[in-house]
Amino acid sequence: MERIAIIGLGLIGGSIGLALKAAGLKDMEIAGTARTRETLQTAKKRGAIDRAEHTPADAVRDARLVIVATPIMRTKEIFEEIAPALSPGAVVTDAGSTKGDVMRWARDILPPTAFFVGGHPMAGKEQTGIDAAEAGLFRDKPWVVVPSLDAPEPAVRTVIGLAQACGAAPRYMDADEHDSYVAAISHLPLVVASALFSVVFDSQAWPEMASLASSGFRDTTRLASGSAEMAHDIMATNRENVLHWLDRFQQQLDGYRRLIAGDDAASMRHAFERAALERDNYMLNGPPRREPSGPAVERVSFSEILLGSWAAGQFRRQQELLRDAESRAEKDRR
Amino acid sequence: MERIAIIGLGLIGGSIGLALKAAGLKDMEIAGTARTRETLQTAKKRGAIDRAEHTPADAVRDARLVIVATPIMRTKEIFEEIAPALSPGAVVTDAGSTKGDVMRWARDILPPTAFFVGGHPMAGKEQTGIDAAEAGLFRDKPWVVVPSLDAPEPAVRTVIGLAQACGAAPRYMDADEHDSYVAAISHLPLVVASALFSVVFDSQAWPEMASLASSGFRDTTRLASGSAEMAHDIMATNRENVLHWLDRFQQQLDGYRRLIAGDDAASMRHAFERAALERDNYMLNGPPRREPSGPAVERVSFSEILLGSWAAGQFRRQQELLRDAESRAEKDRR
Repeated sequence: MERIAIIGLGLIGGSIGLALKAAGLKDMEIAGTARTRETLQTAKKRGAIDRAEHTPADAVRDARLVIVATPIMRTKEIFEEIAPALSPGAVVTDAGSTKGDVMRWARDILPPTAFFVGGHPMAGKEQTGIDAAEAGLFRDKPWVVVPSLDAPEPAVRTVIGLAQACGAAPRYMDADEHDSYVAAISHLPLVVASALFSVVFDSQAWPEMASLASSGFRDTTRLASGSAEMAHDIMATNRENVLHWLDRFQQQLDGYRRLIAGDDAASMRHAFERAALERDNYMLNGPPRREPSGPAVERVSFSEILLGSWAAGQFRRQQELLRDAESRAEKDRR
Repeated sequence: MERIAIIGLGLIGGSIGLALKAAGLKDMEIAGTARTRETLQTAKKRGAIDRAEHTPADAVRDARLVIVATPIMRTKEIFEEIAPALSPGAVVTDAGSTKGDVMRWARDILPPTAFFVGGHPMAGKEQTGIDAAEAGLFRDKPWVVVPSLDAPEPAVRTVIGLAQACGAAPRYMDADEHDSYVAAISHLPLVVASALFSVVFDSQAWPEMASLASSGFRDTTRLASGSAEMAHDIMATNRENVLHWLDRFQQQLDGYRRLIAGDDAASMRHAFERAALERDNYMLNGPPRREPSGPAVERVSFSEILLGSWAAGQFRRQQELLRDAESRAEKDRR
């Protein structure tokens, strides 16, 4: 029986547990822990975990693979709590929406006997918490994998296998690249949705306007309903990129403002026409094809997930044996 | 056999035709006209109209109820084309997204023997054209009814009946009120969605970002895919209100920008928390209850639609008889 630990059993952590269970991995036990006993009980009842543990340190003991799925700012504390309890060769991954700070924390806090490979499953919905979790949440969604510099190949394969077992399409990216891209396609839309909802809600005429609002207003503001803690943590750990994209968006908005205030009807129509055509094109044909910037991701068989983790442990043990042998040889020489 | 005319058979005009047909009104014939023969043929084939007419003037001849469902800027020309052909007592309505200019054009262009009652079904989707039309498009959606100052009650009841026959929830509003509300909940989101899509699309990294983008980006930019002609016409006929809301939105965005750039974590979290809570509240419980500002809308029976139009005609005829009698009496006095 091999153990996987999930720290944090909200929408993402809970869905990972359910997805792994649905995939039917043999001889696997999922230990989980959560901030509240309620969440922990629900996760157990829903079958997202096999064992409920009361502390992150208890959950990771003897685990080959540890998945940290807490809000980003909490991840740093979790690393501190689990560091002493991690098994040698354990592979640690996360599910945070930003990667730069998480990679730095992992490097500074986790022991050299464990391997960190950052992760970001690009899936979500506006509901949060274990009740919203579902096994199919990641199906065909991108799952960004950001190996730390010292992660050996078997550790990386373990996280690729995890993503594939959850039905997602993993792809490699470095942390800076990841954070600048998601600032545009995910964090900027979140700020825009919250600001848009707020400005209309703050109006005296909100009751009348709310009763007229249709699916357009609801869809455009949907992201405002997400977790405020997550929104805060994203902004705090991806500040520069978000501010950069906010500036660009405000310039774009100024451009639209000038077109609307001006009398060049053709240019205004052209601006809306171009956005409509290109968005339709994107929706119908998918993203423009370009050579993928990272290395190709091969298929990792399901049982390899834990085997990969085992191999990573072997790799680490060999390194240690080698180091010991070298230091003994050095002692002998003196 | 009584005639209803629909001018313009896109998403809205086509859906009105299909909805009326689905409601199964007896002894009703729907005549329709469209800019292209293709649209006209498809509308006939899909059963949105009974008779395809080649000009708006032909379509409105002998019609008791005329529905103008063209882009707003085209509505003015349509009024000019149909004015000489309207039957005495004909009720004319429209489906435009702004109401101020349309109400003025109706007053200036339509003959005093016809009655104009503005309309705005608050339903839509990003697909446009007759192929996207569906009978259920208006079900339970608000349909704003804006009577012109001289419209007699039976004419207003005709348009209320039309909205109800299409499954919508009609409500009275004046044109200024309508235009300021929809600027906030419909036109501002449209500009925001187009600007958001454009700024991300214009980036060098668009191919990589597009392949990462998930439902959040797609939903927030959905409105950008609507008709560019409609977007242009909305901005051109509701300019002041849209600019007002754009200013307020940019101020709100500046506020979020300051929170993100600053180091007051509690205030930033509070801003996102408030938007999330209030939006959830709105999604779960609907718009806040307040005494409706307009008069209550009673249920109009389906057959009354044409009866109302007939009554409006009678009303006009009585007025004319009265005026004739008065002028004769005056002549006699001299």
